[in-house]
Amino acid sequence: MRSYHLDPGHGLAGLTVQEHDIPEPARGQVVVRVRANSLGFRDLMVLAGNYPLPIRPGVVPGCEGAGEVVAVGEDVSRVRPGDRVAATVFPRWLDGPFRLDNAAQLGTMVDGMLTDYAVLGEDGVVPIPEHLSFEEAAALPLAAVTAWNALTSGSPLRPGDSVLTLGSGGVSLFVLQFAKLAGARVIVTTSGAAKADRLKALGADDVINYREDPEWSETVRALTGGVGVDRVVDSTGPLEQSLKSAAFGGDVAFVGRWLSGAAGARPIDPALLFRAGATLHPIATGSRTHFVELARAVEVHRVRPVLDRVFPFEDVPEAFRYVESGGGFGKVVITHD
Amino acid sequence: MRSYHLDPGHGLAGLTVQEHDIPEPARGQVVVRVRANSLGFRDLMVLAGNYPLPIRPGVVPGCEGAGEVVAVGEDVSRVRPGDRVAATVFPRWLDGPFRLDNAAQLGTMVDGMLTDYAVLGEDGVVPIPEHLSFEEAAALPLAAVTAWNALTSGSPLRPGDSVLTLGSGGVSLFVLQFAKLAGARVIVTTSGAAKADRLKALGADDVINYREDPEWSETVRALTGGVGVDRVVDSTGPLEQSLKSAAFGGDVAFVGRWLSGAAGARPIDPALLFRAGATLHPIATGSRTHFVELARAVEVHRVRPVLDRVFPFEDVPEAFRYVESGGGFGKVVITHD
Amino acid sequence: MRSYHLDPGHGLAGLTVQEHDIPEPARGQVVVRVRANSLGFRDLMVLAGNYPLPIRPGVVPGCEGAGEVVAVGEDVSRVRPGDRVAATVFPRWLDGPFRLDNAAQLGTMVDGMLTDYAVLGEDGVVPIPEHLSFEEAAALPLAAVTAWNALTSGSPLRPGDSVLTLGSGGVSLFVLQFAKLAGARVIVTTSGAAKADRLKALGADDVINYREDPEWSETVRALTGGVGVDRVVDSTGPLEQSLKSAAFGGDVAFVGRWLSGAAGARPIDPALLFRAGATLHPIATGSRTHFVELARAVEVHRVRPVLDRVFPFEDVPEAFRYVESGGGFGKVVITHD
Amino acid sequence: MRSYHLDPGHGLAGLTVQEHDIPEPARGQVVVRVRANSLGFRDLMVLAGNYPLPIRPGVVPGCEGAGEVVAVGEDVSRVRPGDRVAATVFPRWLDGPFRLDNAAQLGTMVDGMLTDYAVLGEDGVVPIPEHLSFEEAAALPLAAVTAWNALTSGSPLRPGDSVLTLGSGGVSLFVLQFAKLAGARVIVTTSGAAKADRLKALGADDVINYREDPEWSETVRALTGGVGVDRVVDSTGPLEQSLKSAAFGGDVAFVGRWLSGAAGARPIDPALLFRAGATLHPIATGSRTHFVELARAVEVHRVRPVLDRVFPFEDVPEAFRYVESGGGFGKVVITHD
Repeated sequence: MRSYHLDPGHGLAGLTVQEHDIPEPARGQVVVRVRANSLGFRDLMVLAGNYPLPIRPGVVPGCEGAGEVVAVGEDVSRVRPGDRVAATVFPRWLDGPFRLDNAAQLGTMVDGMLTDYAVLGEDGVVPIPEHLSFEEAAALPLAAVTAWNALTSGSPLRPGDSVLTLGSGGVSLFVLQFAKLAGARVIVTTSGAAKADRLKALGADDVINYREDPEWSETVRALTGGVGVDRVVDSTGPLEQSLKSAAFGGDVAFVGRWLSGAAGARPIDPALLFRAGATLHPIATGSRTHFVELARAVEVHRVRPVLDRVFPFEDVPEAFRYVESGGGFGKVVITHD
Repeated sequence: MRSYHLDPGHGLAGLTVQEHDIPEPARGQVVVRVRANSLGFRDLMVLAGNYPLPIRPGVVPGCEGAGEVVAVGEDVSRVRPGDRVAATVFPRWLDGPFRLDNAAQLGTMVDGMLTDYAVLGEDGVVPIPEHLSFEEAAALPLAAVTAWNALTSGSPLRPGDSVLTLGSGGVSLFVLQFAKLAGARVIVTTSGAAKADRLKALGADDVINYREDPEWSETVRALTGGVGVDRVVDSTGPLEQSLKSAAFGGDVAFVGRWLSGAAGARPIDPALLFRAGATLHPIATGSRTHFVELARAVEVHRVRPVLDRVFPFEDVPEAFRYVESGGGFGKVVITHD
Repeated sequence: MRSYHLDPGHGLAGLTVQEHDIPEPARGQVVVRVRANSLGFRDLMVLAGNYPLPIRPGVVPGCEGAGEVVAVGEDVSRVRPGDRVAATVFPRWLDGPFRLDNAAQLGTMVDGMLTDYAVLGEDGVVPIPEHLSFEEAAALPLAAVTAWNALTSGSPLRPGDSVLTLGSGGVSLFVLQFAKLAGARVIVTTSGAAKADRLKALGADDVINYREDPEWSETVRALTGGVGVDRVVDSTGPLEQSLKSAAFGGDVAFVGRWLSGAAGARPIDPALLFRAGATLHPIATGSRTHFVELARAVEVHRVRPVLDRVFPFEDVPEAFRYVESGGGFGKVVITHD
Repeated sequence: MRSYHLDPGHGLAGLTVQEHDIPEPARGQVVVRVRANSLGFRDLMVLAGNYPLPIRPGVVPGCEGAGEVVAVGEDVSRVRPGDRVAATVFPRWLDGPFRLDNAAQLGTMVDGMLTDYAVLGEDGVVPIPEHLSFEEAAALPLAAVTAWNALTSGSPLRPGDSVLTLGSGGVSLFVLQFAKLAGARVIVTTSGAAKADRLKALGADDVINYREDPEWSETVRALTGGVGVDRVVDSTGPLEQSLKSAAFGGDVAFVGRWLSGAAGARPIDPALLFRAGATLHPIATGSRTHFVELARAVEVHRVRPVLDRVFPFEDVPEAFRYVESGGGFGKVVITHD
């Protein structure tokens, strides 16, 4: 069986494939035959050495994958061989708020999912909805969990609330899909008419072209009777327009990928935050419970994750280059033949 | 202008109509020309003297009404003449949890809405959604506010959660409509096939005939993979089947109208509650903020309250008799010509 | 090394001591040399076969124990040999609300703590405060965790809130101690003057003799200006006086041990609950996070658990008989020489 | 009777005293004979025209005052003549979160408290604790309410939590006093040894001299075992050291007075906020409910507000100059002879 391994800080040039024996589970562990992965900017940051956590040299990269359980160790009660599962990005973050002693995550210090067979703790896998293919399920662990966490933390989201999400990246598309399930009115920013059409097809009530409308917070306010939106999920940065878009008392959750880029260099004016009267907080993926909850919502509502392109396992480097180029619309997925 | 007045404990026989001058608003007050009311069991309890709060002899009964503002007193800033509004049942309960010093309610100690012109504090009226007629808006203040409170208090409702609501009374229909907006899977109990069809048309995922299936909590468990529902809103009593239907850690909200009847005489086994692992709490209508929030959800989603029959103002006694007989499906409404 | 083992349903007669080799930890496990235990009614229910969960024949009983880590298995990062720890009663309930798939608990299906050396998952042990002896730390896992959960679930406890707790059992004493730390005014019921003095010495603001004052809810109301208390923790049952003592909008948490006795046979009038306007919910011990939080509070405030009597390990049966007889004041503790 | 009136933007030079008749209450209003006020930086900002809300020319300034009810209008039920009360800064913010339609505040658009007799809505006054003088009670409406709001919003404060508060201004002293009531460990920054001694006498567990220790967040981390504090209330700005002091998952509440000064010009690095993993939110005074809750805590624990200097009513300008000079330690108070 094959695994990718990385050499931190060397980007794609440091990525190698190695052959290994199929692993055996120890007590409390399961072995998953990985059938699909998805890739994202986080993986690129890890490869490039820009990620704010330590990376173990030689680690198997990739934090998103789905497959079937093929073996279970002693004392395992949550899953059985044959179960279709996805891995959780933070295997030890089971419930409640994030705590630093649960910080181990797949693909950095702990071996990740770009492998044919992964050894995982039984708490680190979650059953996937029946109606999803492995490719679709592989799109959930990072982007969907982050979106669910962003929408369910802070004050509860209620039908009729307004939600703003930025762009058509993986997190933003799930925020759109989940917020619509919750009865929200959803406003999305994007850069072009083609994407705007797809966003509307996914349920967006209003789409704003941020290229043509750089002060788009004014449009958000106009669309909401001057009040602003109850909740912003900002996964692109900088935060200024987001803060200006929030209703007084609203909630601005931000996802930090953009912090290493140009947007991240733009500091926040504290007076702007004060006037917004909003709560500002970062979101870091989510817990096993977040995943279990969203999987149920996905199952009940037959939600289908949006996939962009599917690459075979041997073309992971090409898939990463595609992600790096900005990709298309939806998640980039890897399939294991 | 005409007002009904009641003689507590004498039921419909104590109901009289009197002529008055159109009132003037004092500081902080508004005068509303009432265009529609709705009636319910609570009003019957008040008339019969079975209501657990003191009733002022001669008070104008009726706690639900909608109309247009025709005059405002000094210092009024929330509404203007011409605004379409509904009254809140507890004029002083503006936000946060219920507190006893906000217990004054329309139609018991304070003059209610079965009048052509009502004098209300400006905080005691809420703008109504544009797409609703006065008749539809008059259906909101008691039943819809109670349903919204029941669904938004306690742990937050999330897409994919399961909700059980009992029967097709006013509160239950709004619970069904609001829970569907929030992405829940909704199970409803009812007594016959015709009502079951109407409940399904309103979005019910499953309908259980409680007459044919007296131990219907077993059916609820079967429908939820043995887990039970995350949330029950019990507006009919007794609580036993509701507690048996709740998922461990779930939430059982109950509305107390049934307590004065046969169902209310059935005590609760504390061991049943303990095993349910659920939180049990009564719901008493809701605040101005609950009303404002639900009105927004109703507006965004173009929800239409279900009306049963409409009676003219002079036929209020007949309308009450119709309510007493068990009515049909939806709210019984009064219109002022 | 010695372990007690039980024969479910045979009470103390079914309790045997067996000699075993000192165990080795598997992956993710630790071995704890147990230095002290505490005992309570729950253990008696398990021995007697009255406990509402399945009991594995031959299981090691006892859910409360403290000691030092003497060996750790592969992949263990939370503790090291030499660490002073206590076991958590529910080894898999780490954080967030209780969920049924975390229901395994020590001393029923999973080997418990009445042993010289216990094998536990690393998540199932919590470091204990430095100022506590092993005997004192052994008093925490069940009673203190339950008390902390009861006080921190539901609406937050705030300085100036009033708390009612019943009797001087283990849970009740910790409720008293923790509620005082949180700035609450605490009322306790008890049966005699000697206990009343000890309760006052622990900080109780008011003590009510429930023998002399069977309708003591009236006294609670008198002590609170007619309002009632914000929070009740009822660990004795029946619930009637507790519900009558709660402020409107208050919170009544109950612990279920009494449900198998005479108090448990007294059903609850739903009208009483409705009039109370309170939230009623059962409490089942608590999570690892509850334990970590309370251990910090105990450490910061140098809280000392109240110990009643200490028995040597070989006298566990006698200790159980002492517990069964009603005991004294505080926790009954076992020490391993 | 005398009232101060202001000419916005002219500072103390625009302050005049005028004689008026004693006012009469309209429906829903009360007249309070003001016995004491307190002053703070907010009033100076209003006088200087630096306040971010509109100021009505000629308005009576001052948002903090206490006195006795001398007359009540029609329909008033909350208070009676003779009651000792303090005014709430936002007379229409009764409960729940701040909402923009409750934004009217005393001393800006609505007449404030620097007057011998104030006319207030009955919801806009709160009974004061018996053990407080009017001078002490006048210290509560702004600083104590803000402190209570900051400590009770967001995640609940629990015994053993750590709280950081900055300096010895009015808000900070109340944060210290209230956090100690709640069982927190409290760290305070200050500028000199004399203030440090007074802070310790009020209960501060640790005091850091920010002049000698400009990177004092490192000291905060050292004092908390590297973890950081669970909660920061920043009433001085800039936010950088506060964010660096917060535990992951912690809560940073900030009060905005400093935003108009040099500290406010220092922007926030979003990467710093992301790494902090903390929630950042502004605090704007608080509601009537906040005031009622804190008054109860103050009463139960016999808390005494810290007063700095007391000036007679005719020396309000001198008192303002004293506040402007930086004052001493505690609230500056005005007394009406």
